[in-house]
Amino acid sequence: MIDTTPLVKKLGAFVALSDAELSVLATLLKRRRSFVAGRDLVHQGQSDQAAYILASGWACSYKLLEDGQRQIVDFQIPGDFLGLRSVLLHVSDHSIEPVTDIEVTEIHVADLLEAFAHTPRLATAVLWAASRDEAMVVEHLVDVGRRNAAERMAHFLLELAARLFLIGQGDRTGFACPLTQYHLADALGLSAVHVNRVLRQLREEGMVTFRDGLVTFDDYARLAEFAQFDPSYMDQANPLLR
Amino acid sequence: MIDTTPLVKKLGAFVALSDAELSVLATLLKRRRSFVAGRDLVHQGQSDQAAYILASGWACSYKLLEDGQRQIVDFQIPGDFLGLRSVLLHVSDHSIEPVTDIEVTEIHVADLLEAFAHTPRLATAVLWAASRDEAMVVEHLVDVGRRNAAERMAHFLLELAARLFLIGQGDRTGFACPLTQYHLADALGLSAVHVNRVLRQLREEGMVTFRDGLVTFDDYARLAEFAQFDPSYMDQANPLLR
Repeated sequence: MIDTTPLVKKLGAFVALSDAELSVLATLLKRRRSFVAGRDLVHQGQSDQAAYILASGWACSYKLLEDGQRQIVDFQIPGDFLGLRSVLLHVSDHSIEPVTDIEVTEIHVADLLEAFAHTPRLATAVLWAASRDEAMVVEHLVDVGRRNAAERMAHFLLELAARLFLIGQGDRTGFACPLTQYHLADALGLSAVHVNRVLRQLREEGMVTFRDGLVTFDDYARLAEFAQFDPSYMDQANPLLR
Repeated sequence: MIDTTPLVKKLGAFVALSDAELSVLATLLKRRRSFVAGRDLVHQGQSDQAAYILASGWACSYKLLEDGQRQIVDFQIPGDFLGLRSVLLHVSDHSIEPVTDIEVTEIHVADLLEAFAHTPRLATAVLWAASRDEAMVVEHLVDVGRRNAAERMAHFLLELAARLFLIGQGDRTGFACPLTQYHLADALGLSAVHVNRVLRQLREEGMVTFRDGLVTFDDYARLAEFAQFDPSYMDQANPLLR
């Protein structure tokens, strides 16, 4: 019995899937696999990979430039697809690295597309999830393009909290966070030294503390105002299909 | 008879749609509308909008920050969806502005989701299109986060050329481009003065000239190498479903 809890929690908030639809989803999940932290499970340019659903742990997707610079596109938490876009587009446009040791369930995209024919609401759910992922990448673009370092850090931590809340792993007091300052730097287009300085600034201003793997919101409301955080792009208000 | 040529050209390159599937698509296109350049057709925060398919002209999607800064997320060319993500996520996370006068066909998302039930390959085609849009936003994130100003301009112009080629509006010699330096600045996270300087640099180095509404590739191969442009993320090689 493969545990689909985080995925079902996430999709269920947006497209109410019936038991029959959920059991189709369960048949797609071929096998459970484990990967260790820091070793890529998908490589940029790879073309024969499977897609995965993250069951436990955190991962990140990133692109490497030829000069060795790295841009982290997004982090994945339990319930998120890993590499779905890559499979649809034949060639992976990014690499995926486990941030922690992770457990995933493998999904063959031919099976997924076949399942759409019988359970179109599942197609809608997946399209919704892909749209939400895109909305988050758009916010990261705005982060890097137009927000200053402190605002983008604040916005990023608030988004993570909202995503974790949906799968029952965080709230407005804070969340457990396995990311290092190097992850934050590569995601936000900052140096590690700059990340350090910005985190100190936010802590000294009494808004948020990130220490020993724990993000604590010292003043959630003020932090949200500071970051101009409007969570509506994450669409956690009500389901698309009932 | 509503002309779906650019959309059919674009989708047809990736998911081979049958005549029956194309006629379902045609029934979704409710009516043709026109919008004038510079007046938003979707506003950030709006929740009752339709989605559109762009039939002619160019548009851009953007986000405004409270301090008045603007980040252009992407440009849309004929055959692209306008506001599809917004409709799926209930609330528009961005605004859409016509860059030129445009013609669009309106599409009601309830009809689209209903159509998925009968023509699942259409759902796959739309999921593919959404995935490709996301891949482009990811590239823009890398542009702004990790590429220098000249590289990001070069990469951006090459991507536009590849997209236009797919709908028969450009090739490796160049393309007609209605964008102003202000559009380029807001898309690439640069000032208009900086855009000017970068375009002069690329022209003086004999790679590309943007003048009088025309982008001319003076040396396509060298520009592509300079920008590390790898078009595989646009997945224009072969169809996902035959």
